Amino acid sequence: MSDILKPSRRAFLRGSAAAAAGLTAAGTARASDPDPLITETQDWAMVFGDGVDATPYGLPIQYESDVVRRNVEWLTADTTSSINFTPIHALDGTITPQGCAFERHHSGAIELRKQDYRLMINGLVDTPLVFTYADLERFPRENHVYFCECAANTGMEWAGAQLNGAQFTHGMIHNMEYTGVSLRTLLGEAGLEAAGDLSDKWVYVEGADASSNGRSIPMDKALDDVLVAFKANGEALRKEHGYPVRLVVPGWEGNMWVKWLRRVEVMDGPVESREETSKYTDTLADGTSRKWTWVMDAKSVITSPSPQAPITHGSGPLVISGLAWSGHGAITRVDISKDGGKTWETARLAKPGEKMALTRFYLDTDWNGEDMLLQARAMDETGYVQPTKEELRDMRGENSIYHNNCIQTWHVKPSGEAENVEVS
Amino acid sequence: MSDILKPSRRAFLRGSAAAAAGLTAAGTARASDPDPLITETQDWAMVFGDGVDATPYGLPIQYESDVVRRNVEWLTADTTSSINFTPIHALDGTITPQGCAFERHHSGAIELRKQDYRLMINGLVDTPLVFTYADLERFPRENHVYFCECAANTGMEWAGAQLNGAQFTHGMIHNMEYTGVSLRTLLGEAGLEAAGDLSDKWVYVEGADASSNGRSIPMDKALDDVLVAFKANGEALRKEHGYPVRLVVPGWEGNMWVKWLRRVEVMDGPVESREETSKYTDTLADGTSRKWTWVMDAKSVITSPSPQAPITHGSGPLVISGLAWSGHGAITRVDISKDGGKTWETARLAKPGEKMALTRFYLDTDWNGEDMLLQARAMDETGYVQPTKEELRDMRGENSIYHNNCIQTWHVKPSGEAENVEVS
Repeated sequence: MSDILKPSRRAFLRGSAAAAAGLTAAGTARASDPDPLITETQDWAMVFGDGVDATPYGLPIQYESDVVRRNVEWLTADTTSSINFTPIHALDGTITPQGCAFERHHSGAIELRKQDYRLMINGLVDTPLVFTYADLERFPRENHVYFCECAANTGMEWAGAQLNGAQFTHGMIHNMEYTGVSLRTLLGEAGLEAAGDLSDKWVYVEGADASSNGRSIPMDKALDDVLVAFKANGEALRKEHGYPVRLVVPGWEGNMWVKWLRRVEVMDGPVESREETSKYTDTLADGTSRKWTWVMDAKSVITSPSPQAPITHGSGPLVISGLAWSGHGAITRVDISKDGGKTWETARLAKPGEKMALTRFYLDTDWNGEDMLLQARAMDETGYVQPTKEELRDMRGENSIYHNNCIQTWHVKPSGEAENVEVS
Repeated sequence: MSDILKPSRRAFLRGSAAAAAGLTAAGTARASDPDPLITETQDWAMVFGDGVDATPYGLPIQYESDVVRRNVEWLTADTTSSINFTPIHALDGTITPQGCAFERHHSGAIELRKQDYRLMINGLVDTPLVFTYADLERFPRENHVYFCECAANTGMEWAGAQLNGAQFTHGMIHNMEYTGVSLRTLLGEAGLEAAGDLSDKWVYVEGADASSNGRSIPMDKALDDVLVAFKANGEALRKEHGYPVRLVVPGWEGNMWVKWLRRVEVMDGPVESREETSKYTDTLADGTSRKWTWVMDAKSVITSPSPQAPITHGSGPLVISGLAWSGHGAITRVDISKDGGKTWETARLAKPGEKMALTRFYLDTDWNGEDMLLQARAMDETGYVQPTKEELRDMRGENSIYHNNCIQTWHVKPSGEAENVEVS
């Protein structure tokens, strides 16, 4: 137990406490110091709190009322076809609670009862079938934690630093534990003998909402890890996440994770729907478009400090924290730069990276009040390294909206405030 | 891809669908069949749903309004000293959303602002210290998923089958991803040289509420895996879970997970407080008490089917599901019996068991409408096997309230209804 006494960090905080008359901004106070910062009488020990009948279903405490999803009014013409961003700047760990997990609709969030829910599997199958919700519950279930990222996440950054906050630059992402039935199981139930050679077949998936949001998925992905999910983080999907059933397409762009899933058609080619031609393709500098850009490449963002999460404690020990993920597998390493990419330190991963799931990283460091150009750079198990904004523009031009996975820069000022900036 | 066509399960559901004129209670319908069970016009594709401005922080959809915590009125004298049980019968996966994670208070849930929060570390330390909330955020953080089980969970079952529902027999448990600072780090900050030999030292931990709920923890546990946590499932602790800071004591009884944590005192022995003498000890048949029964032994429960989650789909394919956990480490195996313990089948673990965290298990089976005496039996990495009620009573008598980890029995009837029963 002797390493408990190792003095490096301890010396700093104890030193600052010992040097102060009262509580210092930089650190911990001695127990005998007065505590001038307390704003309320500490009378919690003299009263009863709320009884258990107060909260059949609990919400965040009133003091956390700013930790909510937010939309950006000018981004879309109508709120039924818009985005509500996850407050990633205020979260920690990896799980995103459903209540503040980003939502993106093309025609609004519909309300569909379980007893009215139907899922049709048709097309090149032996027996077209319609499943009720109760039917789905009778097939073998799986549980997996996966991130879901909108292809447009960070899309406003192609043209330069636009939005001042990790919630808005990188908040079109969430990470939940899904329970559902594999699409492979349901396709097997309908039978795929009629489809013949499966290697060139596709499925077309669509939702029950007005947009239908139809997307084509190659059969090898459909038979690999795609889930027909009915729970997220243990409980029923929320209305805005596709209650009662959504598709989960691990590592692939969020638009393919069809909500209110109503139909899966086995086809001999892709549909080339609006959602995979005029939208969700990337126009390059020469005017041609990248197509079938399904996988979300490795990416990371520092969530704290960040424009919405400034440093408020002055110089000294500082925890830099953020999220990393890759649609190609597990995150293996995250590096952090304080000088806009000139030098790098390797961050600590809170847990070993898991395939297609968010990884939380930390850098336990000291800050002496200097300007920092903070960046994080993710690497995944394929050896891929997250590119700089310049590298990405060199490859893709600046016409794109989707698939911007470049390194993000926050300028942290001596005041502790942070700003979204570009470095060259 | 040829195993997609394997016929066992598929043949059953397709057979039942093909034999029926319309949708059958037992299975899936052909796509061309009429669908007489739909209760509403399926006009979701003709209207816009809710815009993103509707839900800054989302709640479950109205159709899931029965999936909430519930208390048992006769169990305690007052709701400020009572329990709100997790609706485990309606959840799947392993994560428990904070909003429906069980709560247990001794003097109600208090409301404590971050800026008023203080944590004192005193007693046999080199420098007594007081930490603000902001101070805690400057130490290295850890993330872990752990279950928290009240020692009294299943306590009413000592005397026989009492409460008809997994929520009430086993719902004093939740499983969340915690973010916090290790208690070891904070004790190191105060310094433990003054404590001398640490092997016989203890910490006394207490909360800021009226009950204070003080408990003694031996130093080796305090320096091992105990966390001073400020986030659960990514976001701030809810008020009822100890906002802004609670103790997390992995694998040990929930009463020690002190909420609104205000003080940690290093001592040369245990306090033997009310919460560890008149409460949270187990009186044996001979009138003596088991003491220091901190660890929650391996346990499991079938959540579906169960009294609150009957079988509604008739005979045929049935998914039996439940939860298993152990305070001694990872769950390695769960067996399920349909005949009250005479014969056993090994269940499928959704993921390999993780230390001191809930494990979800499934048995994908066929039910032909017969009576079942359903039981689950957990095993952990130490080789421990969950005991029968009879075995536990032989060891402990029937005077106990706490630490009932016996095998639970549900009688599933031909109607699909289930009842809490005892088998001898």
